[in-house]
Amino acid sequence: MIIGLAQHLKTDYGIDFKNESLLDEAFTHASYVNEHPKENLKFYERIEFLGDAVMQLCVSEYLFKRYDKMPEGKLSRLRAAMVCEDSFSKFAKECHFDEYIRLGKGEEKADARKRSSLLCDIFEAFIGALYLDQGKQAVVDFISKIVFPKLDMGWFDHFFDHKTELQEYLQKDGECVIEYKLLDQEGPDNERKYRMAVYANGKKLGEGIGYSKKAGEQAAAAQALKKFGKTATK
Amino acid sequence: MIIGLAQHLKTDYGIDFKNESLLDEAFTHASYVNEHPKENLKFYERIEFLGDAVMQLCVSEYLFKRYDKMPEGKLSRLRAAMVCEDSFSKFAKECHFDEYIRLGKGEEKADARKRSSLLCDIFEAFIGALYLDQGKQAVVDFISKIVFPKLDMGWFDHFFDHKTELQEYLQKDGECVIEYKLLDQEGPDNERKYRMAVYANGKKLGEGIGYSKKAGEQAAAAQALKKFGKTATK
Repeated sequence: MIIGLAQHLKTDYGIDFKNESLLDEAFTHASYVNEHPKENLKFYERIEFLGDAVMQLCVSEYLFKRYDKMPEGKLSRLRAAMVCEDSFSKFAKECHFDEYIRLGKGEEKADARKRSSLLCDIFEAFIGALYLDQGKQAVVDFISKIVFPKLDMGWFDHFFDHKTELQEYLQKDGECVIEYKLLDQEGPDNERKYRMAVYANGKKLGEGIGYSKKAGEQAAAAQALKKFGKTATK
Repeated sequence: MIIGLAQHLKTDYGIDFKNESLLDEAFTHASYVNEHPKENLKFYERIEFLGDAVMQLCVSEYLFKRYDKMPEGKLSRLRAAMVCEDSFSKFAKECHFDEYIRLGKGEEKADARKRSSLLCDIFEAFIGALYLDQGKQAVVDFISKIVFPKLDMGWFDHFFDHKTELQEYLQKDGECVIEYKLLDQEGPDNERKYRMAVYANGKKLGEGIGYSKKAGEQAAAAQALKKFGKTATK
């Protein structure tokens, strides 16, 4: 049994595993199994295979229901941004899963514990274990705390085109002149930040900062959309 | 409402849709919506997005549980063979889904109804609609009739290496001489069939026919595995 893991899940996420051997499987790397041939251990890959599919469905269903007008192409791109190594490895780190992985000595030395591909695998394996132990709703409850809030925190905002959305909103009842202006810039050449503002018929609607003028404009448009009570991603 | 569809599902599969508008959405192509702008219709793409993820999970879970020793790589390859355009379009055809698709005139003329990519989409869209209407277990019940039996009917046998499996089984308790022999061949050059037999220590264990000697050997090995009570796909 992996020391502290079950307790960590209980304390921090209110998750009480019935079958802790599923957790052991989800957090054990093949290299550890190879080094302990007599212990008859399983490594995470099979359970990760299942967890990957569970995540695909849970995220798809959430996006499908939340963005009930979003076309399929955009849903697919947004799902791809959420269900990927980069996101999952960050979720794993946030949940301190890296501290509980059982690795062989060679992998430990090679710093596998910090490798984003491994962290992603472990996150999926954990989801697979949770699904097998407690069913889909338990997974939905967990990722409602860890994954979905990131949408509102702007993690995936680069997948939305706020400028187009704002334009469509403002021009839905007729013409409207939309302009973006540079307010300010700061920082050295290689990391210069641009503060942009968006105006509709001369009235300022929002401001935003980005590492390019275009990114600043997107941020300004997102702020304007919020003012109109749009979640910026509808 | 699409005439006859709800009744077809009821009669042939015992599926009684509560919300038939989900069925309409699942079986309606964008080209039909464009030709009927006043009817405020939806086309299948969003619901197909969801159905795709539902199928991924249901098939993954089935394979994970049925083949409880199969390594992840093999599970993934087998899932890819099952969850693909080629398979899904055949399932759609088997269920006569092609007869109920609402298409625009141009697409109808272009024979879209027979296009395997469209049939695959419609199958996934139907799964999405069934999932939304009645939940995951209803999907599992349906694909337990339509999809999973194909595993035992050999649809995906080319993803299994029966020869290696037979060898491992026969040699698990020591050495054993395994030979494959050509028994017979027939047919013209371009579609010649080969009847092969497999022998263990001189004793014939099975026969099989294939369009190459190798395919014949695989079929012979599969028959031998069956004799030993192995499903040939452990």
